[in-house]
Amino acid sequence: MSRFDGREIDQLRSTKINKDFLLYAEGSVLIEMGNTKVICSASIEDRVPPFLKGKGTGWVTAEYSMLPRSTQTRKIRESSRGKVEGRTQEIQRLIGRALRSVVDLDALGERTVWIDCDVMQADGGTRTASITGAFVALALALHKLYEEKAINKIPLKNMVSAISVGVVNGEPVLDLCYEEDSNAKVDMNVIMTDNGEFVEVQGTGEESPFTRSELNRLLELAEKGNRELNEIQREALGPVAELIG
Amino acid sequence: MSRFDGREIDQLRSTKINKDFLLYAEGSVLIEMGNTKVICSASIEDRVPPFLKGKGTGWVTAEYSMLPRSTQTRKIRESSRGKVEGRTQEIQRLIGRALRSVVDLDALGERTVWIDCDVMQADGGTRTASITGAFVALALALHKLYEEKAINKIPLKNMVSAISVGVVNGEPVLDLCYEEDSNAKVDMNVIMTDNGEFVEVQGTGEESPFTRSELNRLLELAEKGNRELNEIQREALGPVAELIG
Amino acid sequence: MSRFDGREIDQLRSTKINKDFLLYAEGSVLIEMGNTKVICSASIEDRVPPFLKGKGTGWVTAEYSMLPRSTQTRKIRESSRGKVEGRTQEIQRLIGRALRSVVDLDALGERTVWIDCDVMQADGGTRTASITGAFVALALALHKLYEEKAINKIPLKNMVSAISVGVVNGEPVLDLCYEEDSNAKVDMNVIMTDNGEFVEVQGTGEESPFTRSELNRLLELAEKGNRELNEIQREALGPVAELIG
Amino acid sequence: MSRFDGREIDQLRSTKINKDFLLYAEGSVLIEMGNTKVICSASIEDRVPPFLKGKGTGWVTAEYSMLPRSTQTRKIRESSRGKVEGRTQEIQRLIGRALRSVVDLDALGERTVWIDCDVMQADGGTRTASITGAFVALALALHKLYEEKAINKIPLKNMVSAISVGVVNGEPVLDLCYEEDSNAKVDMNVIMTDNGEFVEVQGTGEESPFTRSELNRLLELAEKGNRELNEIQREALGPVAELIG
Amino acid sequence: MSRFDGREIDQLRSTKINKDFLLYAEGSVLIEMGNTKVICSASIEDRVPPFLKGKGTGWVTAEYSMLPRSTQTRKIRESSRGKVEGRTQEIQRLIGRALRSVVDLDALGERTVWIDCDVMQADGGTRTASITGAFVALALALHKLYEEKAINKIPLKNMVSAISVGVVNGEPVLDLCYEEDSNAKVDMNVIMTDNGEFVEVQGTGEESPFTRSELNRLLELAEKGNRELNEIQREALGPVAELIG
Amino acid sequence: MSRFDGREIDQLRSTKINKDFLLYAEGSVLIEMGNTKVICSASIEDRVPPFLKGKGTGWVTAEYSMLPRSTQTRKIRESSRGKVEGRTQEIQRLIGRALRSVVDLDALGERTVWIDCDVMQADGGTRTASITGAFVALALALHKLYEEKAINKIPLKNMVSAISVGVVNGEPVLDLCYEEDSNAKVDMNVIMTDNGEFVEVQGTGEESPFTRSELNRLLELAEKGNRELNEIQREALGPVAELIG
Repeated sequence: MSRFDGREIDQLRSTKINKDFLLYAEGSVLIEMGNTKVICSASIEDRVPPFLKGKGTGWVTAEYSMLPRSTQTRKIRESSRGKVEGRTQEIQRLIGRALRSVVDLDALGERTVWIDCDVMQADGGTRTASITGAFVALALALHKLYEEKAINKIPLKNMVSAISVGVVNGEPVLDLCYEEDSNAKVDMNVIMTDNGEFVEVQGTGEESPFTRSELNRLLELAEKGNRELNEIQREALGPVAELIG
Repeated sequence: MSRFDGREIDQLRSTKINKDFLLYAEGSVLIEMGNTKVICSASIEDRVPPFLKGKGTGWVTAEYSMLPRSTQTRKIRESSRGKVEGRTQEIQRLIGRALRSVVDLDALGERTVWIDCDVMQADGGTRTASITGAFVALALALHKLYEEKAINKIPLKNMVSAISVGVVNGEPVLDLCYEEDSNAKVDMNVIMTDNGEFVEVQGTGEESPFTRSELNRLLELAEKGNRELNEIQREALGPVAELIG
Repeated sequence: MSRFDGREIDQLRSTKINKDFLLYAEGSVLIEMGNTKVICSASIEDRVPPFLKGKGTGWVTAEYSMLPRSTQTRKIRESSRGKVEGRTQEIQRLIGRALRSVVDLDALGERTVWIDCDVMQADGGTRTASITGAFVALALALHKLYEEKAINKIPLKNMVSAISVGVVNGEPVLDLCYEEDSNAKVDMNVIMTDNGEFVEVQGTGEESPFTRSELNRLLELAEKGNRELNEIQREALGPVAELIG
Repeated sequence: MSRFDGREIDQLRSTKINKDFLLYAEGSVLIEMGNTKVICSASIEDRVPPFLKGKGTGWVTAEYSMLPRSTQTRKIRESSRGKVEGRTQEIQRLIGRALRSVVDLDALGERTVWIDCDVMQADGGTRTASITGAFVALALALHKLYEEKAINKIPLKNMVSAISVGVVNGEPVLDLCYEEDSNAKVDMNVIMTDNGEFVEVQGTGEESPFTRSELNRLLELAEKGNRELNEIQREALGPVAELIG
Repeated sequence: MSRFDGREIDQLRSTKINKDFLLYAEGSVLIEMGNTKVICSASIEDRVPPFLKGKGTGWVTAEYSMLPRSTQTRKIRESSRGKVEGRTQEIQRLIGRALRSVVDLDALGERTVWIDCDVMQADGGTRTASITGAFVALALALHKLYEEKAINKIPLKNMVSAISVGVVNGEPVLDLCYEEDSNAKVDMNVIMTDNGEFVEVQGTGEESPFTRSELNRLLELAEKGNRELNEIQREALGPVAELIG
Repeated sequence: MSRFDGREIDQLRSTKINKDFLLYAEGSVLIEMGNTKVICSASIEDRVPPFLKGKGTGWVTAEYSMLPRSTQTRKIRESSRGKVEGRTQEIQRLIGRALRSVVDLDALGERTVWIDCDVMQADGGTRTASITGAFVALALALHKLYEEKAINKIPLKNMVSAISVGVVNGEPVLDLCYEEDSNAKVDMNVIMTDNGEFVEVQGTGEESPFTRSELNRLLELAEKGNRELNEIQREALGPVAELIG
């Protein structure tokens, strides 16, 4: 089988992580996976939300948004509508959970890290690219805190990355672009740590249900994809990667 | 190991589906799984949302809400806050996708089925109970349409049910109550058809990541649970069950 | 004259108050008046709204909502619309005032009682049924506080109940069902204490104005209805009723 | 007993209705009752709300608002808060019902009359003053339509006015000013037609319940007050009054 | 050239400032410029917004609103829409900046002055009339504070007024009424102190751009207009004017 | 005097306009003025807002937003707050007016051009950079329409650009960066066409009023700045520039 854009079944799109993309953020990257481009930033604030006040522990929260012309036809701004869509909330919650799963919140102390993922261009896989990029921005921001001696180690237990897999034209494939995603009968996002464990698995067969063996094949593809993304994260982080875990 | 409420590792809570619970709805049930109680109704409207107008196809959409005192401490009403929380939106979208996966929307014709899941009492597993109960309400409403000869077959390809599984005290268990859910390191919701295929798998290890073999064991428990729930649905539906698929 | 459902002019519908209907609420009932069914709960919170802080006095507030399929055709959820309708606000304010009129707020201390009235099925008279049922839920919740020795008497000065009356087909009748309500030229809600005084009288002749003598006849019917409702409340409360006033 | 401002028990405050107060409105007045001042306008629009489209009948709807400094301390604008308070909605609904009760909506034809009541200064009784003034604005606007020959009679069946009564210091009194209203144990608003029938009666004893005989005395005071207000309306309307009913 | 309403090119409309127009406000006026009528009030609150807390300095903020029938056709209330329009926000911000420019906020102390400008009738120039009138209301309110000895001087550095100018039918004119404003190719609002300096200049040529010399001519007209308005303000203020600056 | 960043009094920051910055938009640029970076896109939609329907004319509208970490400390998203701030609305309206002033809306036909200005990094002058960049994006989008032969000429009457000027440390300067802007006593934005006429002039002396001669000097600086920006726009547009006007 040949894929829409000539890739192999188990091949990631060309992926780049450009670090320190924004001047003012404590940590930031531009992650590009094929035509998908997401600006990820991590901002550190010296206080926590009310439900954590005085507990000596920190918090990581995420926001996600698409620029109106990140997509093929213009999308109405959520600020103009006056409300955040269900899809956006779902993605924000997913990114937040994924990152919190590798942060030692007690070691972070009474601080909040705000993760912002702003999609500049959307060609499929924006939520998984957001997680992969946001992890790097988060590590950079925490490293800065460490260099300023505000904390005595980087409070990260693991690295985390995410990739989409799906069944397209009857075949399980890795890293779906928009065109493939629109035609997939099954669509799955898999978030993993750098030691090969699962943080979150979300698979949906809205068009048609899927079998246990399809599920197994999809998980294998995702394991391969996440191993490769983890390598790209390590390169982007350079020596900072050594201070994690 | 003995569970919090004395159940076996792979044992469902006592489950009842009381059909025709509401006087006016086209289809309705009260589903009880242990102390969790959800009123599910299906309402049929003779028009579709704007994005489907004139396409000759139907739609199924779901809303989910918790009564303020369904929980141990009172929850603020979303109508009073003026917005629907992210968690609610996530659940509504999940219920909608689960039911649409088994409906033949073309055969439904230009109609919308509104599914309402109102949690009267919440002791864990409200979203999966909602799906299991809502399927029965949906089938009853479609059967009514069929009896009125508005359609010439019930436009359902399969039956669908859902159950939660999780890792509690280091052990994979079936059908978590609230107490277990609060202490689970992994929490997974599994939605399946009555022929044993997967519609949706959502597993989260926010507290700690999980291995591939834990994932496999959880899926097996979910398969068993969904087989049993499907039996309970069949009993509730009686002869209507024969007209599905 | 014979009424729509065969009742006498001055006859209440069959009324039941099932107490302790919800597992977690401090006080709760399901009240049924014919086909009208309302879940009423009372939740006690150990703080007061900002305008009462530090004044040593308590507060009682009410919220009212209809399940989407409590009605003959589905009603849009107020949480989905993002705002609470005028009718709902009017009813919530009415229930709150009615209950506060019999509570000794100083003796309650710095606590708020949240009353929730959720209409499961609506066949007319939901606001008056809410008041009648909510009073019982409130008394049960306060009795619990008394049993826990948090207060040394139940801070209720009187019992309170409510009933609708109206002019249907030219004749004043008691306790209108939906069908009658839709055809009434005058519609009145009368809230009374158990010693026969008025807490609130709201009569509207939108279709046509009414005379002083019609008003008098409606008040007499309401007096009879409220006396009977008060008996049903006493039975539901059992020995708790002895501790009131 | 002597009242706060020296009036007799059954004496209205000094009341003036200045007609054509606004340049652009089809009908408008400034009504002054003591220090209470309300600008009332009636605007005619050649269409009806969606629920009446094509039914050949018209609609009358009302909005009510208080200027921020109409009150002793500044009130936050509802536009700044982003929502209309329950009290405002209750009053708007009351004014709308009161006026619709005397309009022949079929004879009005497919038109909407928007009534706006903006309180410039608030010293008690703003809702009843709004109704009394709005009726005159409405009649003026309909008269204009009649003069333009858009309709062949003024579609008003009766005149309508409203007044507050209450029990202050144990005594029933007519037309409460703010100071009295704050100290009233019972507060009642009574809306009547010019032939002495009741359109709406709303009496509340939040501070303490009231007896049937107190209720009767309050209704008598209200009857006297409304007769006098009706005279003032007639004077303001001049010959237009002859064309009503 | 003769203007729409017979005025000279450089002639203001007849302008009146009626002071103490509202009973309860600390300072208030009704300003009339031709048919444009605005109620301006100044309310003093003994606290400041959060961003100024504890800094020993005060704040002045403004709100602007139009009555629904201030205009030729009825305008929907912003409270009903649930949001404040861009135009309104722009005007509110403009009024606030204009007044703050002449207030010594340190000398005001930790107080907020709320300025409310409510347009009763709109015939062009409502934002400039609001500024001119609001300054007088502000001065009256501060004078009251001074008389109560809460401050030992009136914390106003200058007087401030505003006027509109524009190019109508190819000719620069002073103080546009609505008819002229609708036909202007250039529209400019000029806010000045009583010693002839500029506080704000906002000129827009949406219909067609304008030259430097047109701009110069418009500024001269505005200088003349503001000098005359300043005289009218002085007269309204009487001896209070002597205490400013 | 030496400026904060070493520039001359009348020197622009280094300015680059990178065209076709986004893959999907009909027209787009990234404009950089020193550290200020704004993504501008123009999207063409084949319909007009309701108030223009059927009039054969088009519309241009603009939206402006800042990424949360475009600024030195994180800014809360307007979508999360649920409302668009006054400052944002003011800027959006300004950009829209500026662009409409040079578009021949009749020649555009029944189309809407949506301009989106998303600030990636903010170091002062974001609103003027938005206008200068958005004009290029607009011209590119209209040129695309022209190339597709949907229109037979580019419906632009002129080019338009904008620059800020202000009085910093007592001296009028061109193109303020954030540091200068925070310390300016007068701040002015000047929008001009490429033939040297003014489209909009907005000057504010919130800190202190300004004289006529200061105003004159500021306008001269703005004229110089806009001439230079117009050259940079021409270079970015290349041959498309020849088709304008």
